[in-house]
Amino acid sequence: MWKPDRQSKKPLYEQISDHLERRISYGEFPPGSLLPSERKLAEQLGVNRSTVIMAFAELRSMGIIESRTGSGTRVSRTKWGAMPKHTPNWSRYAEGGSFLPNLPFMRRIREALNQHPSLIDFASGELSADLAPSDEITTLMNEHRYTSHLGYDNPQGYIPLRQALVSYLDKYRGIQTTESSVMITSGSQQSLYLITQCLLSPGDAVAIEDPSYCYSLPMFQSAGLRLFRLPVDQHGICPEDIRSLYKKHRIKMVFMNPNFQNPTGTVFSIERRKQLFDVASKLGLPIVEDDPFSLTAFEGAAPKPLKSMDSNGSILYIGSFSKIAASGLRIGWMVAPHSIVERLADARQQMDFGLSVIPQSVAAQFIKSSYFHPHLERLQIQLQFKRDLLIESLQKELPDLVKFITPQGGLHLWCKLLHEVHDGKLLEEAIKRGVVFVPGSVYGSDSGFVRFTFARPKTEEIAVGISRFAEALRALIVS
Amino acid sequence: MWKPDRQSKKPLYEQISDHLERRISYGEFPPGSLLPSERKLAEQLGVNRSTVIMAFAELRSMGIIESRTGSGTRVSRTKWGAMPKHTPNWSRYAEGGSFLPNLPFMRRIREALNQHPSLIDFASGELSADLAPSDEITTLMNEHRYTSHLGYDNPQGYIPLRQALVSYLDKYRGIQTTESSVMITSGSQQSLYLITQCLLSPGDAVAIEDPSYCYSLPMFQSAGLRLFRLPVDQHGICPEDIRSLYKKHRIKMVFMNPNFQNPTGTVFSIERRKQLFDVASKLGLPIVEDDPFSLTAFEGAAPKPLKSMDSNGSILYIGSFSKIAASGLRIGWMVAPHSIVERLADARQQMDFGLSVIPQSVAAQFIKSSYFHPHLERLQIQLQFKRDLLIESLQKELPDLVKFITPQGGLHLWCKLLHEVHDGKLLEEAIKRGVVFVPGSVYGSDSGFVRFTFARPKTEEIAVGISRFAEALRALIVS
Repeated sequence: MWKPDRQSKKPLYEQISDHLERRISYGEFPPGSLLPSERKLAEQLGVNRSTVIMAFAELRSMGIIESRTGSGTRVSRTKWGAMPKHTPNWSRYAEGGSFLPNLPFMRRIREALNQHPSLIDFASGELSADLAPSDEITTLMNEHRYTSHLGYDNPQGYIPLRQALVSYLDKYRGIQTTESSVMITSGSQQSLYLITQCLLSPGDAVAIEDPSYCYSLPMFQSAGLRLFRLPVDQHGICPEDIRSLYKKHRIKMVFMNPNFQNPTGTVFSIERRKQLFDVASKLGLPIVEDDPFSLTAFEGAAPKPLKSMDSNGSILYIGSFSKIAASGLRIGWMVAPHSIVERLADARQQMDFGLSVIPQSVAAQFIKSSYFHPHLERLQIQLQFKRDLLIESLQKELPDLVKFITPQGGLHLWCKLLHEVHDGKLLEEAIKRGVVFVPGSVYGSDSGFVRFTFARPKTEEIAVGISRFAEALRALIVS
Repeated sequence: MWKPDRQSKKPLYEQISDHLERRISYGEFPPGSLLPSERKLAEQLGVNRSTVIMAFAELRSMGIIESRTGSGTRVSRTKWGAMPKHTPNWSRYAEGGSFLPNLPFMRRIREALNQHPSLIDFASGELSADLAPSDEITTLMNEHRYTSHLGYDNPQGYIPLRQALVSYLDKYRGIQTTESSVMITSGSQQSLYLITQCLLSPGDAVAIEDPSYCYSLPMFQSAGLRLFRLPVDQHGICPEDIRSLYKKHRIKMVFMNPNFQNPTGTVFSIERRKQLFDVASKLGLPIVEDDPFSLTAFEGAAPKPLKSMDSNGSILYIGSFSKIAASGLRIGWMVAPHSIVERLADARQQMDFGLSVIPQSVAAQFIKSSYFHPHLERLQIQLQFKRDLLIESLQKELPDLVKFITPQGGLHLWCKLLHEVHDGKLLEEAIKRGVVFVPGSVYGSDSGFVRFTFARPKTEEIAVGISRFAEALRALIVS
């Protein structure tokens, strides 16, 4: 993004006022709209607040902006054109719609990461750049031609990728299916979005693990769903809880992440799986199985998906490359009965007209290639190494203040804080010290938990990051 | 997709019954669900209907399926597992949700094209494969590395692409903006989806051109919007109509495609543009300007967008590569005030977590490259050539039966039928003869119109396609 040029002879404040004047005159900030605060702009542009104050004074003297105490700085209504009061009230439009904004903590984290790219990031639920198979993918991209078909794609997804996934699902996940049952999506996120928007109606009750990734997604509330909780212990949820939720609230769907659950890392136990199928089949209840982490299993075989035992057809299966290869490919998939695939492919055509063939084609080449398996093995070893580094650091820095179960796969460690601390204050103290994490309450859990994504920071950042986090935590406990 | 192997010693009907048994046992067709009809399956698999009848008989004898007169063929409820009646009622879920299915004609066209890829396609609103810059893009992909960043992207879009678009918009569209006002979307489709979902609320009234592409998009109804019509004549809409709709229905937004309007090909006149800005500014009404076709202008300069004259900040501008380069890149953009971009980027993160960096990066290289301008010039010449071929064919085959205004840009020709014909029957007759088009009623217009996309068929298909269409039309007029 634009930054003032420190080599230029023009003073910084003048560069900034020129830049803002341009953005205002181009319509980015229409008459009457609020400008970012002096503090925020100073952070964004990497200058002192006093420089921004001078730039604002310049714009004020030209009649371009107006400041009123307590209500911030706005673009003048009188300066622009003859009837400036009739510019559309854009901020009212921005507040409209039935779509809820992201959770405040998630927005705050994203904002902090945008402004300070150097923050040590235990928050973003993805692999660090060095864990992605970039070289392998570059090689494949140079070996193949991906542009033979640049028209609109089949709304169910690129057929060669669906065919490649049928083999992948059989070999790696024990799932037998056909390409006509597979739909390609923009990551698990879009699969969940399509399910909540198209298969459920506002007012419907659904059951969700507690804690769960799903609580971090306002999409469930945006779809008008009523959420009910299935507490997760070290063996996962208790299937009997589903039965009682069904009796009380007629829940219409269950959302689960059985293997290396996000955020707790739990693997749903074999015994309870049997009970789950029993309950689901008795109630005719569909289970959405989100399975992004299984192939990260640090030791031994990857835990099987529910779908591989789904003799009764109760499972909608969701998978993705985001957590095992590269989130930037934006490739996920769903395995579902014919009527569901047809419905969702039709709806997605209205939303985005399908995905670009290029990343789909790259993904198909990658899973069919001889690079795929070695990549997975390397990933498992490196993730385990990072997990161990995180655990060492926590044990060294905070032996008396945290408790956790060591995850055997996945990207995250779910950490209980043994002292009561205010979630938001802890996050701000951490950001001040140059580190971010996700407060547990984002996942619908009681406060007093933190999710550390050990996959995301660079190896050399983990110890530093935890030492900063420890400082932040101790600052709050002492004060 | 799967087809029976005609070289195999196994009879076709057995291959088909085995294939269906597999799909049923894998859960694609759960117990109780409806199978495709014999006719449809025969079409899909490219076999005689009698072969499918034998395959069904085979499955019936094994107790896997059941047929009842008048209600089609279903998967048996009794064969699979102990409590088969408790498989989720998937078809009920498929009917749920507030998202409307695509229009029947659009579904029928897609189905026909899937089943018979050899149909001559005047229906799909895109370029033929030979008009896409595939070689240029392949060269660029081999020259650059696109995998340096394979993590989640900025939800507003890849910054280098936004920067490239700022220059593009200035140079080609006379729009001055900054990268912070630009948002990248999955084509115009996603821009419209985000606007209708996030900036408007169910029950809101909006104004739409008549006829308009927008009527082909159930997304407007899915968002619960009330649609009001702005009739298009040869100079576009009449801005005074906006004023009266505002008085009567308090419309909250206007959707327009001012240049080479889809489907009519009209260019909104200079005089009416002035009136439009006047009305919009008096009412404080936002105008969504969809501008996908301008750069196809066959002769002379591309018509300017409204946004380039938008001194009052009334316009939300939408652009895309789909109609001028390749729809398969899935790259579109929006230029909007800050508050709108923030809101929409936040919402889109919940829907799909942003686009893959790969096609964004390719698109950025392409518009910055020396290939871009020559590609546009070649495209204009070839589109004009195809338009002329279409017009010649229509004049030769149907001189007495159709009337149209020659479009000066865009991909479509809007054709009035001088005899009354049933839209649906005409489409079926045409499909039978190996050609598809879009019936005018899809665009909300009175029946008696047809949209021909001359950009989509191959050059050598145009005359044959129109001769088939002429046969279909004459068959209905005679009978």
